[in-house]
Amino acid sequence: MNLLKEFDLHDPAKSGQELHSFAAELFPICRSITGEGIRQTLAMIQSRIPLKVSDVPSGTSVFDWTVPKEWNIRDAYIKAPNGKRVVDFRDCNLHVVNYSRPIHETMLLSELKPHLFTIPKNPEWIPYRTSYYKEDWGFCLSHNQLLALEDGKYEVCIDSTLENGHLTYGECSLPGRSTDEILISCHACHPSLANDNLSGLTVATHLSRFLARRDLRYSYRFLFIPGTIGAITWLARNQEQAGRIRHGLVLTCIGDSGKFHYKKSRHGVAEMDRASAHVLKHNSQDPEILEFSPYGYDERQYCSPGFNLAVGCLMRSVWGTFPEYHTSADNLEFIHPQELEQSLRVCVAIIDVLENNRRYRNLRPYCEPQLGRRNLYRPTGGDDIGAEINARLWVLNLSDGKHSLLDIAERSGLPFSMINDAADVLFQGGLLELGSD
Amino acid sequence: MNLLKEFDLHDPAKSGQELHSFAAELFPICRSITGEGIRQTLAMIQSRIPLKVSDVPSGTSVFDWTVPKEWNIRDAYIKAPNGKRVVDFRDCNLHVVNYSRPIHETMLLSELKPHLFTIPKNPEWIPYRTSYYKEDWGFCLSHNQLLALEDGKYEVCIDSTLENGHLTYGECSLPGRSTDEILISCHACHPSLANDNLSGLTVATHLSRFLARRDLRYSYRFLFIPGTIGAITWLARNQEQAGRIRHGLVLTCIGDSGKFHYKKSRHGVAEMDRASAHVLKHNSQDPEILEFSPYGYDERQYCSPGFNLAVGCLMRSVWGTFPEYHTSADNLEFIHPQELEQSLRVCVAIIDVLENNRRYRNLRPYCEPQLGRRNLYRPTGGDDIGAEINARLWVLNLSDGKHSLLDIAERSGLPFSMINDAADVLFQGGLLELGSD
Amino acid sequence: MNLLKEFDLHDPAKSGQELHSFAAELFPICRSITGEGIRQTLAMIQSRIPLKVSDVPSGTSVFDWTVPKEWNIRDAYIKAPNGKRVVDFRDCNLHVVNYSRPIHETMLLSELKPHLFTIPKNPEWIPYRTSYYKEDWGFCLSHNQLLALEDGKYEVCIDSTLENGHLTYGECSLPGRSTDEILISCHACHPSLANDNLSGLTVATHLSRFLARRDLRYSYRFLFIPGTIGAITWLARNQEQAGRIRHGLVLTCIGDSGKFHYKKSRHGVAEMDRASAHVLKHNSQDPEILEFSPYGYDERQYCSPGFNLAVGCLMRSVWGTFPEYHTSADNLEFIHPQELEQSLRVCVAIIDVLENNRRYRNLRPYCEPQLGRRNLYRPTGGDDIGAEINARLWVLNLSDGKHSLLDIAERSGLPFSMINDAADVLFQGGLLELGSD
Repeated sequence: MNLLKEFDLHDPAKSGQELHSFAAELFPICRSITGEGIRQTLAMIQSRIPLKVSDVPSGTSVFDWTVPKEWNIRDAYIKAPNGKRVVDFRDCNLHVVNYSRPIHETMLLSELKPHLFTIPKNPEWIPYRTSYYKEDWGFCLSHNQLLALEDGKYEVCIDSTLENGHLTYGECSLPGRSTDEILISCHACHPSLANDNLSGLTVATHLSRFLARRDLRYSYRFLFIPGTIGAITWLARNQEQAGRIRHGLVLTCIGDSGKFHYKKSRHGVAEMDRASAHVLKHNSQDPEILEFSPYGYDERQYCSPGFNLAVGCLMRSVWGTFPEYHTSADNLEFIHPQELEQSLRVCVAIIDVLENNRRYRNLRPYCEPQLGRRNLYRPTGGDDIGAEINARLWVLNLSDGKHSLLDIAERSGLPFSMINDAADVLFQGGLLELGSD
Repeated sequence: MNLLKEFDLHDPAKSGQELHSFAAELFPICRSITGEGIRQTLAMIQSRIPLKVSDVPSGTSVFDWTVPKEWNIRDAYIKAPNGKRVVDFRDCNLHVVNYSRPIHETMLLSELKPHLFTIPKNPEWIPYRTSYYKEDWGFCLSHNQLLALEDGKYEVCIDSTLENGHLTYGECSLPGRSTDEILISCHACHPSLANDNLSGLTVATHLSRFLARRDLRYSYRFLFIPGTIGAITWLARNQEQAGRIRHGLVLTCIGDSGKFHYKKSRHGVAEMDRASAHVLKHNSQDPEILEFSPYGYDERQYCSPGFNLAVGCLMRSVWGTFPEYHTSADNLEFIHPQELEQSLRVCVAIIDVLENNRRYRNLRPYCEPQLGRRNLYRPTGGDDIGAEINARLWVLNLSDGKHSLLDIAERSGLPFSMINDAADVLFQGGLLELGSD
Repeated sequence: MNLLKEFDLHDPAKSGQELHSFAAELFPICRSITGEGIRQTLAMIQSRIPLKVSDVPSGTSVFDWTVPKEWNIRDAYIKAPNGKRVVDFRDCNLHVVNYSRPIHETMLLSELKPHLFTIPKNPEWIPYRTSYYKEDWGFCLSHNQLLALEDGKYEVCIDSTLENGHLTYGECSLPGRSTDEILISCHACHPSLANDNLSGLTVATHLSRFLARRDLRYSYRFLFIPGTIGAITWLARNQEQAGRIRHGLVLTCIGDSGKFHYKKSRHGVAEMDRASAHVLKHNSQDPEILEFSPYGYDERQYCSPGFNLAVGCLMRSVWGTFPEYHTSADNLEFIHPQELEQSLRVCVAIIDVLENNRRYRNLRPYCEPQLGRRNLYRPTGGDDIGAEINARLWVLNLSDGKHSLLDIAERSGLPFSMINDAADVLFQGGLLELGSD
C-alpha cells in the first residue's frame, strides 16, 4: 500500500490547521509526569483515536526506579506586601516549578529569592523548571517581574498535592499483517509548551488516525507517556512486547520552522536510521542527521543496552539549541500549521519506506529484459531515458534477492517512492517476484 | 611479462596516426545493428586481426529478445518541389533515421515535418537517430536545412530493405596460460560517428594486435558487436563461456580530448575497478571514477544480475554530456591521433596490472633483509632512499601472501609499474616466492 | 591505576629541566652503532634505571644480517698546509663520518675533497653522515670551512679502530600483572644530535622511572639500542619474547617545538594506534596521524611481516622534514625542557589508556539506572547535564561487554580520562562489572 500517495490526496492546508487547533486546545492544561493534567490530555487524544489508558500506582517498582507520587495543583501565587498577586499561576502554569510541594507562608523577599527562577538574557520570558526527584518548591517568572519586586513581606502559596496516586499513560495499537511492531513515542508531560511537545502529541495522534483501518504490513504502537519515567514504566511492564519492536521513532519539537534533524538509534545503521535519512534527504531542505548519543528524549530508554531497540528521534530544531526551548516563548505562535503538516508527511513517508521496503528477484536476470515491447521504455533511440525508466533499470539490475528497495534507492540516488513505483510496474509486468525477507 | 614497457618501445606518433587513419577508413560506412555496413566493418577489422565472424539468423530467440531483421540501404533523399535533392543520404548517412523502413512517396511539407529531426541549438549539425524496435522512418538534417524548406510537395525516398537475414558480430580470441578471460567489448553499430565508436573499434583492434603472440597469463576475448542486441546475442549463445570472464572493459568514446572517465562494474571493488582507477590516477590528468549505474553501453548486459561480470567502461568524454554526442560533429576532427594512442596505452597499462597482479611471500619475513649487501640499497647512510628503494621496502613488508601487488601499490601510493619492478628485482634476488593465488 | 593523574602531581617545570639536563650530559659523547660511546651512554642510563646491558660479539648472525665490527675513535683532524687543525674531531664529533676506517695520510686538497661533506644551503652547519655497511672514511664540515680551504697538501688523520668486538644494547623490564608486554624502543646510536635521539633516550628513561614500582597491568620492556642492527639483533635473540609484545612505541625526535606526529603500526587499527591518536587529539595542538610506511625508525623491524607487532612511532617534527635534521643544528638549543616534559606526559597518557582500557558490563541494562538517587546526576530538571554526567550515560549505554572504554571515548568524543573516571564512579556505585577481556 502506497501510504505517501494516499496521504497526498489530503488537503495539506486543512490538515495543518487541524493539527494547530488541536495543539491550541491542549495548550492551557498544566501537565506534569503524573496527575490530572496528563489524564485530561490523554482524554482529549482519546476523543480522536482509540487509546488504552493505564494507571500505575505510585510506589510500583519499574526497573531501577519507583513510580512517583501523583502531583496536582489548584492554584499558586506570590502576593506582594500590598496584597496584589505579582506572580499568578492562573496567568501561566509555567510560573510554578513543576512538581512543587505545597507551601503557604509569608517570607521576606530575601528568603523568597532562592526559589525564584528567571532568564536574564530574555527578560520577558518565563522559564520552565521541574523538581521531580527532589521535593522542593519554586516559582518561575520573567526577569522584568523579578526586577520590579520591592523589599518586604510576601505571601507565597502553592496549593498543590503530592500524594500516592497513579502514573498515567496512553497507548494506541493498530494491528498489521505482522506482529512485528513500529513504535511511535512522544512525551506528554510538559505543561504549556507548544513545540516541546504538543507538536509531537498532535502529529502522533493524526498519524495514528491516518494509519487506522489501512492494510498495514507492520503493527503499530503509539505511546503518549510522561518523559523518562513513563518510558521506563511502559518498558518494565511490557518487556516481552518490546521485543517485537522492529523500528521506532520518538517525536519531539516538530512544529517550529527549523530544518529537520534525525538522531540515529544506537545501532546507527538500522533500517529506521536509513529510511529516515533517505526520506529527509528527498523530502526536506538541508536536513541534518545526528549520531546517537545517550542523552536526549525517551530514545535514551529504548536504546539502553538491554533493549537496544532501533528507535531514532525526529526533530526540527533540536532541544536545548533554540532560545525559546523550555520557556514561555515556546507558545502557539512558535509552531505553525504548515510545519506540523510537513512533519506529519515526513512521518508518513518514513513509514511508507518501512512498509514497502521489500526484496525482489528479477525473473529475467540474464541481460536486460526487453522493456520496449512491454511499453516500459522510451519509443525512440537517442532520447534521454528519464528518471522513471532509470528507476526500472536500477530495480532490475539490483533485484537479486539481496538488495532491498531502500538499498536500491540509496545506491541509485533516486527517491524511494520512484523505486517503489518501478518495482510495482515491473512486478505487474511479470518481471519480478518477491524475495524471501 | 611487462606489457607497458614493451608498449613504450613503440613510436607513439606513428601508432596514433595509424589509429586515426583506420578510423578514417571506417568512417564513411553506414553501419547499423544488422546489415552490410557492420559486415563490411568487421571485414576491415579482420584484415588486421584474426576475427571470427558469426551470423545469427533474424528471429532467433536470445534471452528475452529476438534477433531483428536485417537492414540495408542503397539510397535515400528528399526532393524539393523543384526536383532538387535537398536532403541526400549520399552526402551523409546520418540523414536517414537508422533502421528506417523503405518509403517512396510524395507529400506536403506539413506531412513530412513530423518525420524530420534537427538540433535547433546547433543549427549546422545533423543529429543521429535510430528506430530499431519500432518500424518507422525519418530524416535527420541540420536545422538550417529545415528552415530553408519551402511549402510544396516533396518526393521522399528511402531505398532500404528490412528483411529476414542475420545479425553479425566479430570476435577475436587470444589464448593465454589460463582459460580465465579478459573481455574487451565495443559496439560497432554506429554509422559515421567517430568518437562513438570508431575510437573504441580502432583502439580495441590495435590492442588485440599488440597482445597477439605474447606470453599472456589470461586469455583474451575481443567483441565487436552491435550495441545492446549484440551483447545480448553473444551472451545468450555463450553463457558458459561468459563464466570464464574474470575482468572486462567496454571501450567507447575514447578518441576525443576529454579527460578519462572509468565507470565501475556492478561490483564496484572488482580488481578491474581498482586496476583502472589506479592506472588512470598514475597515467592521466585528473581522471574521474564513476559509480556503476545500469544505464550506459554494453556493461548493462555484462553486469545484469544473472551474469554480474566484473566489466567496467572506459571513456574519455562521457556519452550524452558533450554537445557533439550523436551528431554529425562527432566526426574525424573530433578525435585525434594522440588521444587515441594515449587511450590505447591506458588499456595496455590496465592489462599490465591484471597480468602482473600477483601475491608474493617474503622469504626473509623476520626484520628487513639486508638489501645493502645485495646492492639493492643506497650506499651512504643519511641520503634519501628514493622511490625505487621505497618500493622494495613496501613489497618486502606487505608480501605476506595476502597482499597483491595492486594492494601494495594502492597502500604505498606508488605506481604499480614501480611496485612490479621492485617485486621482480626482489624475486630475482631470492627474497620472494610466488604465493598461491 | 590512573597513571596520568599520578603523573600530574609532578612539578612539570622541574621534570622538564631534569630531562634537558640529562640530555646535556649525554650530548658530548661520540656514539655509534657499536663501541665505547654507546656503552658509556648505557652506563649513564643505568645510573637512573635498572638496565640489563647485553654484548653481542661481532660476526654473530642475526636473521639476514651479521653483527658488525666494533668502532672506536680517539681523535681525527685535517691539518692545513700551515700545520693548523682546520677540521677537528675534538670540536665536534660530527666532523668524522661515523664508522670511518682509520687513515693517516697526506694528500692534495683535490684528493681530499671527495671525502668532504657539507650543506651548501646552511653554510654554518656540519652534516651528520655514516658509512656503516661499506668501509670508507670521510669528514663533515661547514660549507664555510670548506670554502676557506686553500690548495696544498693536507694531513688527514682518523685515529679510529674497526675490529671484532661487540654490539651493545640495554633493556629494562618492569613486571606487571600480565606477561603481555608494552615495548618502548629508542635508538641510542647517534652522536651529538639532541632531538635525534637524546630526546627519545631521556624521555624513555624518565618514563621507565615513573612506571617503576607501580601496580601495572602490563609488563614493560624498554630498549635502548643501536638503530636497525640493534633492533634486528634484539629480535633475533628474543624471538619468542617478542610474541608477548601487545603494544609498542618507538620514541624519536620528541624534544623540539614541532607539533606531534604519530605514525601508525602496520595494522593501522591496533589499540596502540587508536590510543595514540586519541591521546594526541585530546592532549596536544593539531597533531597529525601518519599512515604506516616501511621506511623510518625501528618500527621497520618490529612491523616486518614475520613479527607484525603493533608498534607505532611517536615524533614531534618528522625526521627528514626539518632542516636541522642530521646536522650540528640539532643541538641542545633545538630541544626544550617544556617539550620534553610534554612528550613524556603524552607517553604516560597513552600508557594510561592501554592500562585502563577495559570492557565493562552494565548491571542495570534495562533503561537508565536512576543516577539521581545515587547523587550521580544534576539536582534540577532543565539544566545542562555537563560532560561528567554525559560520560556516565555513555559508559552505561555502551557497556555491553563488547565496547571498550576507548571505543566509548572515541564514539562519545570525550577524553578517555573522563570516560575512565565515569567508569570508576559507576563501578564503585555497583552499576558495572568487569567484562571478560
